[in-house]
Amino acid sequence: MLPFAINEYQERINQVKDIMQKRGIEVLLITNPANMNYLSGYDAWSFYVHQMLVIILDEDQPLWLGRYQDANGAKATTWLYDDNIIPYPDYYVQSKTYHPMGFIASILSQIGQGNRHIGVEMENYYFSAKAYEMLKTNLPNATFKDASQLVNNVRLIKSDQEIEYIKRAAEIGGHAMQKGIQGIHAGVRENDVAATIYHALISGTDTYGGDYPAIVPLLPAGKKTSAPHLTWSEDPYQAGEAVIVELAGCYKRYHAPLARTVSIGKPSQAFSDLSLVLTEGLNKALEAVKPGVTCEEIERVWRESIAKHGIKKESRLGYSMGLSYPPDWGEHTASLRPGDQTVLQPNMTFHMIPGLWFDNQGIEISESFRVTEQGCEVFSNYPRELLIQEPLPIDQSGKIS
Amino acid sequence: MLPFAINEYQERINQVKDIMQKRGIEVLLITNPANMNYLSGYDAWSFYVHQMLVIILDEDQPLWLGRYQDANGAKATTWLYDDNIIPYPDYYVQSKTYHPMGFIASILSQIGQGNRHIGVEMENYYFSAKAYEMLKTNLPNATFKDASQLVNNVRLIKSDQEIEYIKRAAEIGGHAMQKGIQGIHAGVRENDVAATIYHALISGTDTYGGDYPAIVPLLPAGKKTSAPHLTWSEDPYQAGEAVIVELAGCYKRYHAPLARTVSIGKPSQAFSDLSLVLTEGLNKALEAVKPGVTCEEIERVWRESIAKHGIKKESRLGYSMGLSYPPDWGEHTASLRPGDQTVLQPNMTFHMIPGLWFDNQGIEISESFRVTEQGCEVFSNYPRELLIQEPLPIDQSGKIS
Repeated sequence: MLPFAINEYQERINQVKDIMQKRGIEVLLITNPANMNYLSGYDAWSFYVHQMLVIILDEDQPLWLGRYQDANGAKATTWLYDDNIIPYPDYYVQSKTYHPMGFIASILSQIGQGNRHIGVEMENYYFSAKAYEMLKTNLPNATFKDASQLVNNVRLIKSDQEIEYIKRAAEIGGHAMQKGIQGIHAGVRENDVAATIYHALISGTDTYGGDYPAIVPLLPAGKKTSAPHLTWSEDPYQAGEAVIVELAGCYKRYHAPLARTVSIGKPSQAFSDLSLVLTEGLNKALEAVKPGVTCEEIERVWRESIAKHGIKKESRLGYSMGLSYPPDWGEHTASLRPGDQTVLQPNMTFHMIPGLWFDNQGIEISESFRVTEQGCEVFSNYPRELLIQEPLPIDQSGKIS
Repeated sequence: MLPFAINEYQERINQVKDIMQKRGIEVLLITNPANMNYLSGYDAWSFYVHQMLVIILDEDQPLWLGRYQDANGAKATTWLYDDNIIPYPDYYVQSKTYHPMGFIASILSQIGQGNRHIGVEMENYYFSAKAYEMLKTNLPNATFKDASQLVNNVRLIKSDQEIEYIKRAAEIGGHAMQKGIQGIHAGVRENDVAATIYHALISGTDTYGGDYPAIVPLLPAGKKTSAPHLTWSEDPYQAGEAVIVELAGCYKRYHAPLARTVSIGKPSQAFSDLSLVLTEGLNKALEAVKPGVTCEEIERVWRESIAKHGIKKESRLGYSMGLSYPPDWGEHTASLRPGDQTVLQPNMTFHMIPGLWFDNQGIEISESFRVTEQGCEVFSNYPRELLIQEPLPIDQSGKIS
């Protein structure tokens, strides 16, 4: 049932322990669900309550600590011994009186880890300010260190099996993009296109079933394309509008994000020209990808390309991606932007998203890729251009005739 | 475009300010996206980066602080003056060098709020341990107070308009449950049923478009029903398995959760009997709901009912729900469990979920309801029983013939 061989998990843990040793961390508390999955296989929508994986430098296996009703899920989805699954009672959940970190601290004390150098993921959705306060209060003899991106950094370079899963995700995502774009016509409600995309993302292909992406399909239309993170409404599309579709196929929690922009009817010359500036910069930046080049060098190629046309982009050009849970499919490690001197290595995977957002409209055409031995392999083969949808006739009731 | 009249938002802010005053909080930093939406209307999938709404006791309007590329979304979806939308540059996002709370602290200082009593939502997915540390470091003269459930508690009692949205969500959710259950047959892949459910949830009805629920549809099958938070796999269902379907219809971010269990073919007598114990307890607990009764009294009715049959439930019976964002549709305030003395009042809304999970199987049959003047109104009218799906013939290729 595990998506990877057990020795792949163990190798990942060895890499994490090497870094722990170098940083003087004896015990690592992992609360990022992607990192929990990466090291143990644990996969469930239980991250809305406190849970963690505990890596102890001188112990073979991690411990899983979580809610009592989720312990069976941990037994079903991880390679850990059942004895290493330690549940806390339900009265700790979202309580005014009890906090799960009180329970977890007492377990750590009982097993002799209460006075050690403990790494915690300080910058992480699932390690709240309160959780940290409770741990500090209940483990007064521990020394805490910030280990926020420790495991994420190990995840930067993918194994061949991980790359295979991202390729399946890309196949699913490309199919969903096609279904979505096909459905975008004046008079169709935005939510109906979102429903079509979701169906394609989850049904996947005949061979591979889709997993839920860490971000919902984003598909702002018209003026709302000026804001990349608006979701759909129940309004119908209007003729002449542009629609941005940003989505990710997902397979066994691995993502392949992809964005395209479609114009309902003929776009303005200015918008069409803008799309060419964008794809020219995107193509040049992709061509610059190879091992040894830094993230900021890739971004510079893009920036100089669009600057020739008088265009500036305020935000980063892209980010490392792969295994993830909501609310983000990015890995929060390397970014394609000025100042990021991460050196590209084979099997790093990125989402390059040259989105441009102005006050009244925006455009996105993106690609996900892996760094190869020689250059770059783009995961999708979806046409890399501004797409144009010919309008369908609409009858007076607003239905497509 | 706003889902509520501006004076409803202003009334909510007045209620929040009253509590702030009583608790000695002069400035409230709201990072829970549901609370941000509740007070300002803000609605976007941007909560994966730091953002907040700032309520200042002696200022009329809140401030929105967030990422530069999300500022247009804030202008489009809130009732705030454009001048109150304050963006931070993109280089603060997921950076090793800069933290958005550094920017936010400097804004608070500039507007004379740096030395005040500041409330923060300590227990919240979107206020990390690191965020709190950065705020404390950059605002050394501020006094911080935990205001975790301050706004959530105001949300407990819904307005009539909010109830109307939950009813629309329930209509959408009931429709999705029907489509999902209809599709569950031996030989069908779990992900294909999830895809059908998602399509129904988002397409909604002819009148109301669906929004994305804060939790994905949960549909464990067979032995996996022993763990409530496992999501789907790409495996086909087996004849004789039970399948739990837990989902929520969602409309304008308001949820109506619903769970049912379906047996593929005739269930065992023991499982069928168990379902009757569950529905008897559920019915009695729903009958006990009325204003003036406490949450723990409702749970006791359920507990005593199942105890007569020798059954115990480890976890809480239910929780307050309504407006939400991933990863949870619960409000994190009142729970139906021992010790919770919250007094029921009209227009409180709960998900009562008497799930029972054993080592090899589980069962869930739930209802969402509102407290009325006299008793309780259940939002769904889906048959409240263990459902039975007659198996379809399967040919040797595994396809339904």
